[in-house]
Amino acid sequence: MAKKIAVILAEGFEEIEAIAPIDVLRRAGIDVIVAGLSGKTVTGAHGVKVEADIVLGDMKGLPDAIFLPGGLPGATNLEASPAVIDLIRRMHQEKRLVTAICASPALALQKSGILEGKRATCYPGYEKNFSSGVTFTEERVVKDGNVITSRGPGSAIEFALKLVEELAGKEKAAILNRGLVVKP
Amino acid sequence: MAKKIAVILAEGFEEIEAIAPIDVLRRAGIDVIVAGLSGKTVTGAHGVKVEADIVLGDMKGLPDAIFLPGGLPGATNLEASPAVIDLIRRMHQEKRLVTAICASPALALQKSGILEGKRATCYPGYEKNFSSGVTFTEERVVKDGNVITSRGPGSAIEFALKLVEELAGKEKAAILNRGLVVKP
Repeated sequence: MAKKIAVILAEGFEEIEAIAPIDVLRRAGIDVIVAGLSGKTVTGAHGVKVEADIVLGDMKGLPDAIFLPGGLPGATNLEASPAVIDLIRRMHQEKRLVTAICASPALALQKSGILEGKRATCYPGYEKNFSSGVTFTEERVVKDGNVITSRGPGSAIEFALKLVEELAGKEKAAILNRGLVVKP
Repeated sequence: MAKKIAVILAEGFEEIEAIAPIDVLRRAGIDVIVAGLSGKTVTGAHGVKVEADIVLGDMKGLPDAIFLPGGLPGATNLEASPAVIDLIRRMHQEKRLVTAICASPALALQKSGILEGKRATCYPGYEKNFSSGVTFTEERVVKDGNVITSRGPGSAIEFALKLVEELAGKEKAAILNRGLVVKP
């Protein structure tokens, strides 16, 4: 059965960071649920208005993975949500995949405490938010245990392909890499 | 005054190809109008539902540039629209920028006839649609006169930065390249 991932869209989400993984993961046959944090219609940081599949509060059970895009104020809205912080912690407790890009690793993931002792990356400059227990690296996509982090819009497709590798296998990711005409 | 570009969204547009340029061009301060071909709510090839700013039929005058994303059936819907083919020809007659990615160079642009005598690129395999008067190249982004073409989702940010260069200058494009964390 296809793995399930919830993508959480807050007002002010970064459009490329959110949409590129939704697109790539659906190409891989993964069950992607777009969950609006505070409503079904969500407007991105650059004015793109997207209709989510559900409101986060209506999500039943835990998916196999969650993904938090960045963008401002999207990433601060995710960080400020007790529901999002609680979801991150419950996912982590069950060793399910927790993934984030841009400011979100350094905001919501940092706040949840799940990065302690882990390697992670984030948008350039946001690493100052990481506590001393987090090992920051400038790699474009970083996987440490059940946590995958990445840097920004320009790494969103690479990040998405890493999620495909985890949720649908390396072969699927390699096929998609060619199909997407990714820069060699 | 900021230059104006219309992005035409048909049902089944490729989400990364459409959204990445909208995002990047708005970051550059360019006036981006998202125009739905057959309605204001448009659903992409991978189920992402976007609210357009206007319906194409309501667009007043000619913008400085137009952009046709790819995706299936998005690209065939654009090709099948007499309004789109007419718009391409009017833009071209006035030497305004006409841009397209993925299947759209080989479908709508090819059909409009504006590519005759020009170099262009498209999604791998679609080059068979180009007439003998078009010089196909495998470069990721191609500019020939007032026409800019590109290959697929993986080249969408590179393509968008080329549009920024044309509409807002090289310096702005270079700043965005860094801000987006584009792969070196």
